[in-house]
Amino acid sequence: MSHNSFGHLFRVTTWGESHGPALGCVIDGCPPGIEFTVAEVQAYLDKRKPGQSKFTTQRREADEVKVLSGVLPKEDGVTLVTTGTPISMMIENTDQRSKDYSDIAKRYRPGHADYTYDVKYGIRDYRGGGRSSARETAARVAAGAIARKIVPGMIVRGAMVAMGTENIDRNKWDWDQVDQNPFFSPDASSVDRFADYLDGIRKDGSSVGAVIEIVAEGVPAGLGAPVYSKLDQDIASYLMSINAVKGVEIGNGFEAARITGPENADEMRIGKDGKPEFLSNHAGGILGGISTGEAVISRFAIKPTSSMLTPTKSINSDGEEVEVVTKGRHDPCVGIRAVPIGEAMVACAIADHYLRHRGQTGRI
Amino acid sequence: MSHNSFGHLFRVTTWGESHGPALGCVIDGCPPGIEFTVAEVQAYLDKRKPGQSKFTTQRREADEVKVLSGVLPKEDGVTLVTTGTPISMMIENTDQRSKDYSDIAKRYRPGHADYTYDVKYGIRDYRGGGRSSARETAARVAAGAIARKIVPGMIVRGAMVAMGTENIDRNKWDWDQVDQNPFFSPDASSVDRFADYLDGIRKDGSSVGAVIEIVAEGVPAGLGAPVYSKLDQDIASYLMSINAVKGVEIGNGFEAARITGPENADEMRIGKDGKPEFLSNHAGGILGGISTGEAVISRFAIKPTSSMLTPTKSINSDGEEVEVVTKGRHDPCVGIRAVPIGEAMVACAIADHYLRHRGQTGRI
Amino acid sequence: MSHNSFGHLFRVTTWGESHGPALGCVIDGCPPGIEFTVAEVQAYLDKRKPGQSKFTTQRREADEVKVLSGVLPKEDGVTLVTTGTPISMMIENTDQRSKDYSDIAKRYRPGHADYTYDVKYGIRDYRGGGRSSARETAARVAAGAIARKIVPGMIVRGAMVAMGTENIDRNKWDWDQVDQNPFFSPDASSVDRFADYLDGIRKDGSSVGAVIEIVAEGVPAGLGAPVYSKLDQDIASYLMSINAVKGVEIGNGFEAARITGPENADEMRIGKDGKPEFLSNHAGGILGGISTGEAVISRFAIKPTSSMLTPTKSINSDGEEVEVVTKGRHDPCVGIRAVPIGEAMVACAIADHYLRHRGQTGRI
Amino acid sequence: MSHNSFGHLFRVTTWGESHGPALGCVIDGCPPGIEFTVAEVQAYLDKRKPGQSKFTTQRREADEVKVLSGVLPKEDGVTLVTTGTPISMMIENTDQRSKDYSDIAKRYRPGHADYTYDVKYGIRDYRGGGRSSARETAARVAAGAIARKIVPGMIVRGAMVAMGTENIDRNKWDWDQVDQNPFFSPDASSVDRFADYLDGIRKDGSSVGAVIEIVAEGVPAGLGAPVYSKLDQDIASYLMSINAVKGVEIGNGFEAARITGPENADEMRIGKDGKPEFLSNHAGGILGGISTGEAVISRFAIKPTSSMLTPTKSINSDGEEVEVVTKGRHDPCVGIRAVPIGEAMVACAIADHYLRHRGQTGRI
Repeated sequence: MSHNSFGHLFRVTTWGESHGPALGCVIDGCPPGIEFTVAEVQAYLDKRKPGQSKFTTQRREADEVKVLSGVLPKEDGVTLVTTGTPISMMIENTDQRSKDYSDIAKRYRPGHADYTYDVKYGIRDYRGGGRSSARETAARVAAGAIARKIVPGMIVRGAMVAMGTENIDRNKWDWDQVDQNPFFSPDASSVDRFADYLDGIRKDGSSVGAVIEIVAEGVPAGLGAPVYSKLDQDIASYLMSINAVKGVEIGNGFEAARITGPENADEMRIGKDGKPEFLSNHAGGILGGISTGEAVISRFAIKPTSSMLTPTKSINSDGEEVEVVTKGRHDPCVGIRAVPIGEAMVACAIADHYLRHRGQTGRI
Repeated sequence: MSHNSFGHLFRVTTWGESHGPALGCVIDGCPPGIEFTVAEVQAYLDKRKPGQSKFTTQRREADEVKVLSGVLPKEDGVTLVTTGTPISMMIENTDQRSKDYSDIAKRYRPGHADYTYDVKYGIRDYRGGGRSSARETAARVAAGAIARKIVPGMIVRGAMVAMGTENIDRNKWDWDQVDQNPFFSPDASSVDRFADYLDGIRKDGSSVGAVIEIVAEGVPAGLGAPVYSKLDQDIASYLMSINAVKGVEIGNGFEAARITGPENADEMRIGKDGKPEFLSNHAGGILGGISTGEAVISRFAIKPTSSMLTPTKSINSDGEEVEVVTKGRHDPCVGIRAVPIGEAMVACAIADHYLRHRGQTGRI
Repeated sequence: MSHNSFGHLFRVTTWGESHGPALGCVIDGCPPGIEFTVAEVQAYLDKRKPGQSKFTTQRREADEVKVLSGVLPKEDGVTLVTTGTPISMMIENTDQRSKDYSDIAKRYRPGHADYTYDVKYGIRDYRGGGRSSARETAARVAAGAIARKIVPGMIVRGAMVAMGTENIDRNKWDWDQVDQNPFFSPDASSVDRFADYLDGIRKDGSSVGAVIEIVAEGVPAGLGAPVYSKLDQDIASYLMSINAVKGVEIGNGFEAARITGPENADEMRIGKDGKPEFLSNHAGGILGGISTGEAVISRFAIKPTSSMLTPTKSINSDGEEVEVVTKGRHDPCVGIRAVPIGEAMVACAIADHYLRHRGQTGRI
Repeated sequence: MSHNSFGHLFRVTTWGESHGPALGCVIDGCPPGIEFTVAEVQAYLDKRKPGQSKFTTQRREADEVKVLSGVLPKEDGVTLVTTGTPISMMIENTDQRSKDYSDIAKRYRPGHADYTYDVKYGIRDYRGGGRSSARETAARVAAGAIARKIVPGMIVRGAMVAMGTENIDRNKWDWDQVDQNPFFSPDASSVDRFADYLDGIRKDGSSVGAVIEIVAEGVPAGLGAPVYSKLDQDIASYLMSINAVKGVEIGNGFEAARITGPENADEMRIGKDGKPEFLSNHAGGILGGISTGEAVISRFAIKPTSSMLTPTKSINSDGEEVEVVTKGRHDPCVGIRAVPIGEAMVACAIADHYLRHRGQTGRI
């Protein structure tokens, strides 16, 4: 049992607080012979990194990852090869303005884990959220960069599909757009709308949530297990473990509860190549907890950033009523930066099931 | 690692297929000194049991639970006391019309795990869904009956809040209604509407999904862990492991992504008893993965029953295209029977975190 | 985490007390397509079964195993094929003379877990040792019968190599002898000696311990992991979990601490078939936690049966000093029956590592 | 499942190779509010550190530990308090003479994991043993320093009781002697003898093994679990995971197999304070897998250092026969430095069971 690990054969443990010297992860069980470069890992971290646009927190972290174990360098001096032993990665915290947080040391910020941490542990690192800071997700993204390499041919991509009351037009979905706007939106026509909307939110000292969709293609059929290690169950668990996530869906998700069986069914046929083929993918690529070979599709809902300028009634650790206004550097929509995090989590879940499936059945 | 277990300190392993001699569960880690009766466990099983109304499958199972280990009888001859050793419970399968399934032995029923099991394992118990049959959930319900006893004062209740396009009126919520209608609806005014709607669905040979809400009251603050053993994460995982579930929400859920920070915030004050008090519970009783002391609220979406009379195109294990019509006994809305299952899963998740919290911190 | 499970990919959970209705195990993660018969499992159980000779307890149990899930019958009606889902096996308790134990309900039998159970749980099933009865090992033996099938070509055999002060002559080792004497001795010349020795022990109302050696042949090189999932570590853990075991050795074991590096070294050469070959096997087939391809050799020491006619000073649960004489049916040397149990545990450990190795590396 | 972790509620994951930039550990599940100083951790590391006497390897490492997360400093600026979140500790590798190992890059050193790593992973960090280097144990010692704080009043101490053919005189046992000689011997009269013996071994270019005994006092009764989480089982597992360990004993250990029941029995009485009291401790403080309240006593046997000047026949990764002579800096008896490692492992095992016992039963 671990409070800070996920996965079984591809097992990730993360550690570190927002304002300690560093944070990091240990990947245990990575197959040997996987090749990657530090630059590849760094690229995913940069995608998640704050301060990239005016829509994300202005905290500036180099977020420079170091690989401390589990690899051997190839002759090119750049490529690293995994050896099968634990891969330890570390990111040092550089920009720590702890002063920003001193006035909220005792105040329980609504929507944050301040109160619950104190109840649980009786002690709490209040600087920047401590362990519950979204900074922890940098370690996930680093782990995800390796996970993406485990299943040959797998591509995991994510996009923001809704922010507050604004939605993308799914008919205009274009993966190439995602990296060309600060919202990770796959719909170019939505970008100005999202920008205007979020500007308004920020000027109001308010905040807003978002819905992120993750699509994993190239996932072989057969991953997952029938009952308590369902692939969708683990994806749900992994996504729900991301800070501020309040809902998770697979395939049709909640919509499936509103439609009929015939509407929700995915018919099958024998394709031109003689292989089984689905005519639709309402199931999101998973049946009975096991992948079908179709794209694995999941979505998660992120609540509005709890840190905001709008004053909120709360209490402090002395049992006094207080008013909380968070002046620190925070994203008006934390959901935006969750895209690479969601990708990383889905990649980790699938990588783990790939190894487990190979272990139990030997069929891949 | 287990494919068929959940929980850490309160750990449940289930086993059994729809048409084998029996199914059951083993509860490992239950505290000693917990008192229960077989009749209590049976009552929850009866609630889940098929054949209770015309709206659920007519398969009739006695679903009689036997407790095989881990308990000592008290002098009253009825009450059992747990000893701290594994509690094994078994339910024998009695009504097995395997013939009903013979014509679909090779056919991959759309929406079922038939195809994915064959891809994964190369072999499959096709009778009644085998391991992926909803009959497996009887074992969960039995385990949940014990889990409900772990946290002193905790009450876990569930209700159906939507079926297809029909919703309850939340203003008419009355827990006492739930057990008085075949839909587990908390809104008496919804019952006729649900009945008419489902009658129509059934007559069409169609099926429909549902949304179930589970409310756990009396959950002490402090349960859960900050990052990868979040209480909401585990509830999401447990609920997503139930057959046919495609979405999970905590508190405001997906709605949280649509509203603003001030709308979603739960303000706090010092209550009349001098204790911290929340003015609302949009968070669903969980902040930063840790319980707040408020009611823990979750919802899950169940897809329409995949087995239906509507013909659906599919293939068989010989690689031929076929048409599938399921004539076996099936619920037009499997979601209905999911209420006691959802309750059991939430009770198990909270029980586990209660013991873990006590273990790590000694604070309860 | 589990208190009553072992293994990761080949995971076994056992349940049941000595005097409850039944005991059993659930095997989770068994690969699909493994063939076995109930008779094969039964044969191992019969080997462990009490009442086989005057040297083992006269308690007579049919020890008839039932397979409740996880298999499909083949056309011959005898062979079962695993489906990849949990295999539940149950053995009903038939010969329960609970009266024999009534006078020791409150007395803490020295060397037994009576006192420690009461301290730990505050409640205890005193009948026949309850959960800590060696009857629990029947479930292990059943699980081991399946585990033996996982690694193609693997043979796991055990023998008693010492009882009290008597030892076998290792130069006379003949595996064929093991099943032809009640001591599982591989040395025919030792049998009369063991018989005389144990007769004397029994007549004295005393008891004695034994050393068992388990040899697993046909174990491919590469199983195990470098640091905390060493194959020898898991074998040590599994063997130490058997009742009354107080010591475990791999290869040269404690002797390795007494000899020099050159004496303990296993030199290598290229064999006639062009493959690597070891010139000796002091390491017991494991280097750095990973199997070498040589026979995996382990030994474990079992303490003298704690239940004996010799009066022993103790206390009872009322805090009074008492004298304990155990009149129930017990083996003067429980070590004898540990041979099939040790075999089962080693088979389970290796099976688990075989699947894990396949999962992580894909190299078998 | 983890290949590089141990423990359940007090869970330690280690990472790092002998010649990489650093090694370290992550402790997950440590209770909040535990106080310690870096100096305390460092003191245990210094005890294990090489280069302390002519009897240990001359590799000189600062072995300076850094605490990267999971703590808050107290006002004294020295004391750290655990917060309940993961504690990450790192030790940078400073003295890396990789050149020493270049000539054995392809040679399989007998007794080392070189061959088995290559078979398992197909790739191997050959520098100084890589992951299988005893340097990894520094991370265990750091974790153990925290584990020692978990159980109030517990003291865990170790001593070397035999080296090769030389033994201590147990009648001269004096804990105060242990830290006053380079052998961690509790018997002052043995020191010259050990020194002469080991000098001879070293001059011969040979090596020798040792037996270490670990005694944990102040362990409350009730820790452990009946069947597969026995306290002795976990101690055996933890100790066997230390490099070069080939045997483990609890209490009387293998001697228990040679004596009779009456000789091995630990009688009980009511002590002067009215509390249960054992008259002896042959059981080593554990009955039925659960602690009795007596000292928990374990021993482990370490094989002779495999790296030695004596030439040994072996093969290389090209399939050629070679002769191996290890000229690197190595201990003639690695067993000596295993004392603080064994202490750390036993402390971790007991700490874990303490938290698990509290979690399941709430009785401490």
